[in-house]
Amino acid sequence: MQPIERPVETKPPEARARVADKDLLRETLRDQTERGQTKSDIVLQSVQRLLRRGAITNLSKMLGRMHPADIAKVVTHLSSPKEKREVFELVRGEAKRGQVLSELDGDSIQQVLADLLHSDIAWLLKDLGPDDVAYILGFLPEERGKEILALMKTEDSTEVADILKYPKDTAGGIMTTEFFSLPEDATAQEAIRRLQQATDAEMVFYIYVTDKEDRLVGVLSLRQLLTVPPATTLKNIMTRDVISVTVDMDQEEVARQVASYNLLAIPVVEKDGRLVGIITVDDVVDVIREEATEDMLKMAGAIEEDSVSKSSSVGAAKVRLPWLFTNLVGSLLSGAILWYFRFTIQEVVAIVSFIPVIAAMGGNVGLQSSTLIIRGLATGTVESTDVWTVFFREVKIGLLMGVACGVILTAVGWVWHQGFLGMVVGASLIIAFLVSTSMATIMPIVLKRMGVDPAVAAGPFVTTANDITGITIYLTLATLFLEHLR
Amino acid sequence: MQPIERPVETKPPEARARVADKDLLRETLRDQTERGQTKSDIVLQSVQRLLRRGAITNLSKMLGRMHPADIAKVVTHLSSPKEKREVFELVRGEAKRGQVLSELDGDSIQQVLADLLHSDIAWLLKDLGPDDVAYILGFLPEERGKEILALMKTEDSTEVADILKYPKDTAGGIMTTEFFSLPEDATAQEAIRRLQQATDAEMVFYIYVTDKEDRLVGVLSLRQLLTVPPATTLKNIMTRDVISVTVDMDQEEVARQVASYNLLAIPVVEKDGRLVGIITVDDVVDVIREEATEDMLKMAGAIEEDSVSKSSSVGAAKVRLPWLFTNLVGSLLSGAILWYFRFTIQEVVAIVSFIPVIAAMGGNVGLQSSTLIIRGLATGTVESTDVWTVFFREVKIGLLMGVACGVILTAVGWVWHQGFLGMVVGASLIIAFLVSTSMATIMPIVLKRMGVDPAVAAGPFVTTANDITGITIYLTLATLFLEHLR
Repeated sequence: MQPIERPVETKPPEARARVADKDLLRETLRDQTERGQTKSDIVLQSVQRLLRRGAITNLSKMLGRMHPADIAKVVTHLSSPKEKREVFELVRGEAKRGQVLSELDGDSIQQVLADLLHSDIAWLLKDLGPDDVAYILGFLPEERGKEILALMKTEDSTEVADILKYPKDTAGGIMTTEFFSLPEDATAQEAIRRLQQATDAEMVFYIYVTDKEDRLVGVLSLRQLLTVPPATTLKNIMTRDVISVTVDMDQEEVARQVASYNLLAIPVVEKDGRLVGIITVDDVVDVIREEATEDMLKMAGAIEEDSVSKSSSVGAAKVRLPWLFTNLVGSLLSGAILWYFRFTIQEVVAIVSFIPVIAAMGGNVGLQSSTLIIRGLATGTVESTDVWTVFFREVKIGLLMGVACGVILTAVGWVWHQGFLGMVVGASLIIAFLVSTSMATIMPIVLKRMGVDPAVAAGPFVTTANDITGITIYLTLATLFLEHLR
Repeated sequence: MQPIERPVETKPPEARARVADKDLLRETLRDQTERGQTKSDIVLQSVQRLLRRGAITNLSKMLGRMHPADIAKVVTHLSSPKEKREVFELVRGEAKRGQVLSELDGDSIQQVLADLLHSDIAWLLKDLGPDDVAYILGFLPEERGKEILALMKTEDSTEVADILKYPKDTAGGIMTTEFFSLPEDATAQEAIRRLQQATDAEMVFYIYVTDKEDRLVGVLSLRQLLTVPPATTLKNIMTRDVISVTVDMDQEEVARQVASYNLLAIPVVEKDGRLVGIITVDDVVDVIREEATEDMLKMAGAIEEDSVSKSSSVGAAKVRLPWLFTNLVGSLLSGAILWYFRFTIQEVVAIVSFIPVIAAMGGNVGLQSSTLIIRGLATGTVESTDVWTVFFREVKIGLLMGVACGVILTAVGWVWHQGFLGMVVGASLIIAFLVSTSMATIMPIVLKRMGVDPAVAAGPFVTTANDITGITIYLTLATLFLEHLR
C-alpha cells in the first residue's frame, strides 16, 4: 500500500490509466462478481485505490464515465468526510454534481457541502427540480437554507419554499412543483406547442387539465394528444375521473395509491382542489423502500437509522436502548415469576431444563403471526375488517403447531426426565401457543384502529408478554402437579 | 340482518341505490375514517351488505364506478370463493374484467376462473398486455394454460409463451414484450408517425433504438423527438449509454437498478444484446413490496404466504414449523445447559431470577444488529466491503448498550439478592452483548458472500446461538464464583 503523499509520477501514466479503463473494469467485474462481490463493491474499491494513490486525473476520468447515482453511492460509502469531499469536487460540471447531491443521504450532503460558499451551493442547485432542492436544503440548518434560496432565481426559490412549508413525510413535502398543466379550453395543437417549449417539466407522463380557478378537472396522456385532430379542445378528450391526493396525505398512503393504481405520477391538490404539484413514481419507489425498512427496524427496536455507518454509535445506542429496557423489565418480570416459584424449582430441579423452551417458543410463534399481520396491514392485503377471519386462522395454525411441538416436547421430557413432566411441558406449550397467537394477531389490529403504528407491537411488548404468560402457565401447572413430578 | 333470499323489492329501489351513491359513500368515508377505518374497509363492507341482500343491480352499478384495482381488492378480501365469483361476474365488460383479473392474487384467480370455459378466459385476456396474461396463466395448471393460449391470436400467444419460458422471478419472467423500438436510421418524423399508429404499446416512456440485428443501441425520450427537426435520424439524437438488464437477472436486482437510476422502464436484452422486452416501473414497485415482505417473513420464519387468509392453516403450519423446530432444538440445548449446571442452581436458587434476562437480551440485541445489516444489504446501503466499518460500529454500540443494561442489572441484582450476584449478572450481560452483536453482524455478510439469503440469518440461528452463549457465560461465571454467591 502506498502512502497518500506518494507522487503520481512513479509509474508511466498509461499503466495507471488502465485502472479506470472500461474493459479492464468490466473484466475485473466478471471475475469478482463470481466471487460474490457486487459491481458497486468493486467500483468503490477502485475509487478508494485511486484516491489513496492520489491518481486524481484517472479518478476524475472514471467519475466522468459514471452515472450520478453510482457516484452518489460511492460517496455515501466512503468512510471519511475528507474523502467524500475530494470525490465530490472531482465530478465535472455543476449539473452532474447537483444530480449526485440529490442522490446522497443527509449526512453526506452535510459533509460534502460543509466548506462551500452559499453562492456555490446555489449554483449547484440551479438545474435541479424543486423537490430535489427542497430535499437537499432540508438537511442544512434553516438559516443557511434561507440564505441559499435568496441567491437563487426568485421563480425557483418560491417553488422550493412552497414545498419546504409542508412536513417532509406528506404529499406536499415530497411533491415537485414542476408539472405540466393546461386550461381545459386549450386545443390539442396548442398543447403540443406548449409541450415543445416546456423545458423544466422534463418528465411528462400525463397532461393535467385545470379550470379557471386552477382546480384539477381532468387528465390526458401524451399519446392521446398525438392521435386526435389538432383543433380538439382538451375538455373533450380528457379523462375526468382523476386520482389525486391532498397535500397533507401521509407519504405511505400516497405510495399505496400509486402502487395500487399503477400510476406513473399522481397529482397533488390543495383542500380547495387547486393543483399544486405532482409526485412521480420514482420518488414513490424510494418511499416504499424507506417505509419497509422503517417497519422492519421498528419491529427490532432499532429505528434510528435507515442505513448503517452513519450516525454516531452513542446516538444509535440511545435510540435502541428504550426497546431493550422494555425487554429488560419484561424479562426481569419473568425472572421474578421464577423466583416466586423457587421452591417448586428447588424441589424438582428438572423443571429448569424446559424454562428456555417455554420462554422462547411463545414469543417466536407470536412473532410469526404479528409479522404477517403487520406487513399485511402495511401493504393492504389485510384490512382491519378481516380481523376475525385472520384471528381464527392464526389461532388454528397456533394450535396445530402447538400440538406438533407439544408432542415432541412431551416425548423429550419423558425420555430425559419422567413422563409426567413431559406432559406438563407439552400442555403448557400448547396453551402458551394459543395465548401467543391470539395476542399477536389482535394487538397490531387494535393498535392500528387506535391510530398507533402496529409495527411497534411485534416488538418488545408482544414478545415479552408472551414470555411471561408461558412461564407462568408452565410453573403454575408444575406446582399444581408437584406431587406427581417428585 | 336480512337473509340472502330476501326479495330486492321490499324497499323502493332509490333508497337502496343510495348505498352505492358517491356522495353518501364519501360522507360515510369521512365519518368512518375518523374512527380508524380505511376507505377499502368501507367499500368492502358495502359490497358484502349488497351481496347479502342480493341487491344485484345496485352492486353492479357500484362496481361500474369502481377502479379495476379497487374491485380486485374487494374480491381478494371476500372470504368465500362463491362470493368472489359472484362479484367478478357482475363486473361489466371483458376489458375491465380482464384488468381486475390482472390485479388479483393467485388463489383468487384460480377460484374466479374455476368454472369458466377456456374460450371465455381467452376472451377476458385478449386486451391485456402479455406480461399480465403470463402472470394470470402462471397460476393455472400448465395444460389449461396451453389450451387457453391456443385459443388466442397467434401473435399474442407467442408473446405470452416467450415470457412464460423464463423463470417467474427473473427479468424475463416479469417483462412485457410490448415495447416501442425503431431502427437507428429512422427519422424523427417517421418515429412520430409510427408512434401514432402503435396501439398496443400503451405506455411509451422511452423509444428504444436498435441496429439491424435487433440489438439495443440507444434510447430516446418522447419529448426529444418532438423538439428536433423532422428529418433528423434517431442515430444522431439518441443516447448511446443505455442501462439495460439481461433476461436472467434476478427481479430483486432489476428493482434495485430501476430504483437507483430513477428509471420509468428498463429494457431487457438477451445475452447477445437483442432487445426482447421492457420492465416498467409499476411492476418494479410490486417487486420491491414483495421482496420487502418476503424478507420480513423470512426473518420470522413464516415465508409461506404474501398475505393472510389464503392458504390452508395446515399448509401454513407446515411452512412455519421448521423454523420453530430449529428454535425448539436451540432452546432445549439452553435447557440442557441449565440442567448441566443444576447443582449450582440448586445451591443458589436466586440465579434463576436472571435466566430470562440473560437468555432474552442477547438475542434481542443481535436481532437489532442483524435487521439493520440485512435491510442494508437488501437496499444497497450496506456493501459487503463495508464489513469492518459496520462490524466495529455495531460492536461498539453493543458494548455501550451492554454497559448501560449491565449497570442496571448489577444494581437490580444487588438490591434484590446480593451484590456479588449482581456483578456476575452484569458482567455476563456485557459479554453476551459483545458476542451477540459480533455474530449478528458477521453472519448476514458471510451468508451473502456464500450466496445464501441473509434474511434467514436474523431468524432462528442467530437468536438461538445467542441465547445459548448468554446462558453458558452466565452459569459458568456463577459456578466459578459460587463461593461468593452462597
